[in-house]
Amino acid sequence: MFYLVGVDLGGTKIATALTDTDCQILKYETVRTEASRGADAIVDQMIDEIRRLTDGLPKESILGIGVACAGLIEPGTGKVLYSPNLNWRDLPLKDMIARKLNYPVYVGNDVNMAALGELHYGAGIGKKHMICVFVGTGIGGGIVIDGHLYEGANGFAGEIGHATIDWDGPDCPGGNAGCWEGFASGTAMQRRALEALDRGETSMLREMLRGDPGKMRVELIAEAAAKGDALSQRLIDETGELLGAGCANLVNILNPERILMGGGVIRGVPELVDRVEAVIQRRALKDAAAAVEVVRARFGREAGVIGAAVLVKLAGKP
Amino acid sequence: MFYLVGVDLGGTKIATALTDTDCQILKYETVRTEASRGADAIVDQMIDEIRRLTDGLPKESILGIGVACAGLIEPGTGKVLYSPNLNWRDLPLKDMIARKLNYPVYVGNDVNMAALGELHYGAGIGKKHMICVFVGTGIGGGIVIDGHLYEGANGFAGEIGHATIDWDGPDCPGGNAGCWEGFASGTAMQRRALEALDRGETSMLREMLRGDPGKMRVELIAEAAAKGDALSQRLIDETGELLGAGCANLVNILNPERILMGGGVIRGVPELVDRVEAVIQRRALKDAAAAVEVVRARFGREAGVIGAAVLVKLAGKP
Repeated sequence: MFYLVGVDLGGTKIATALTDTDCQILKYETVRTEASRGADAIVDQMIDEIRRLTDGLPKESILGIGVACAGLIEPGTGKVLYSPNLNWRDLPLKDMIARKLNYPVYVGNDVNMAALGELHYGAGIGKKHMICVFVGTGIGGGIVIDGHLYEGANGFAGEIGHATIDWDGPDCPGGNAGCWEGFASGTAMQRRALEALDRGETSMLREMLRGDPGKMRVELIAEAAAKGDALSQRLIDETGELLGAGCANLVNILNPERILMGGGVIRGVPELVDRVEAVIQRRALKDAAAAVEVVRARFGREAGVIGAAVLVKLAGKP
Repeated sequence: MFYLVGVDLGGTKIATALTDTDCQILKYETVRTEASRGADAIVDQMIDEIRRLTDGLPKESILGIGVACAGLIEPGTGKVLYSPNLNWRDLPLKDMIARKLNYPVYVGNDVNMAALGELHYGAGIGKKHMICVFVGTGIGGGIVIDGHLYEGANGFAGEIGHATIDWDGPDCPGGNAGCWEGFASGTAMQRRALEALDRGETSMLREMLRGDPGKMRVELIAEAAAKGDALSQRLIDETGELLGAGCANLVNILNPERILMGGGVIRGVPELVDRVEAVIQRRALKDAAAAVEVVRARFGREAGVIGAAVLVKLAGKP
């Protein structure tokens, strides 16, 4: 039997999985990223995890290690050009891992890897033209064109959350204004909920927070909405409209056959998928809207490690 | 010697060109589209033009006819699914032409054909990842991916002018709000100029129009701006910002190596190209912005016929 290793390396946690050659998870571990200790320490943490996961397996049964990393990854070299979450610039991640573990190593952007996993084993199997929209603290995109992940001229494609949907809107870090993720991400939803409470709006969210605004979560808003809380219902309506407006743009620009939606906000408020579909039907051009279906991602938190394993598998193909 | 025929079929004019096999124009004619007389009459007009253009040439020297048509074209069949400019729905244009002229016929969307011409013989030669942005009465896009025109799942890709840059903005025909072309097209620029005059703003445009708002043109605004007219200069500044905001979105989403800008507004106000580049540098993500160059299209009004000839040429290739 042969195995693949998939790693999902983020600013808060490192997830590591051992999979079979169909990228099915056999073992799955997570540890908290010791981000403050610097790059070498984090790489060592990751290597410890991989060693533990593969302990006792014959060396030659491990076909390779795939790493899904938050940030901009240079295609080919596996260098992390920039990762705000990990506070890295120009870090030769692939080489650092390969030096310590004698396996083939492949590194990709975490959102792209999640899209790759959905494309090969999830809710996008067999799709030729698809856009994966992951809504969490930000909004990330994985673009599939002609059945392959599209990375752009330099590996930077898919930064859909930084497209403006309000050109004259609030300033965003990085120089743009009115970025989509500033309106429609989980962070934005939570911020607007807290702002409404600050303005004195009546809502059961106030009691649910028990005086701690740090407890505001998308799941809490979904729970309150289900119980009839008007503010929470309005926030979900608005988020559906805002997510749909950005998705309609992607439909008009790229005419995909499928929009696949995942990430923590979609897991927390799954009804957003249907709302986004309705907004696309209203906002996008008629023919392109009629041709697209909106579906929910198959994988949850494990999307990154599965995609990273797929990356290893694809590398072994001609 | 062999020849190609390229036709650009729009709501106001039909341009027809005879080219050599390098898509160089040898003869070029335009006639006014007799749009009110219906589809059969327009197709007859086009066929008359093609016959006149190819008169005296041996039948076997004409390799085929390419038609660049405004509207949504079904790939493969050459059927016009919808053309607002020509007021057509589900018109089998390719078959109608082929029935009367015994040549191979190929039909493509006019904006896509203009992009194809630039890709093969214009300002985009050899580019793998490029977005062509044509700014005229609307804003149309031609997306080049991996060196090929990208048409999407159903041939509808590239409708960049209908992406919103103000999700809560003014309603647009078709259900969306705040569409890019509603802010940054030539039509929008002229509309804002007239609105400013209506509000009583001081501007030499008022005298230049001689009381006829119908005379408002982008060229006029450019002329007034060159003479120091503050309103016209502000309109150009604003249009640069608005065009740049939308282009920055395309850069963030698709990471192209080149943005190619053409169309009547760019011909009328060429300085917009540099302005758009500056806005992209400010608004788009740093790495993607650093990787893109913004250039002016090579072809002008003849872009459509050249691209249509390229379509014939490509069809002859394996």
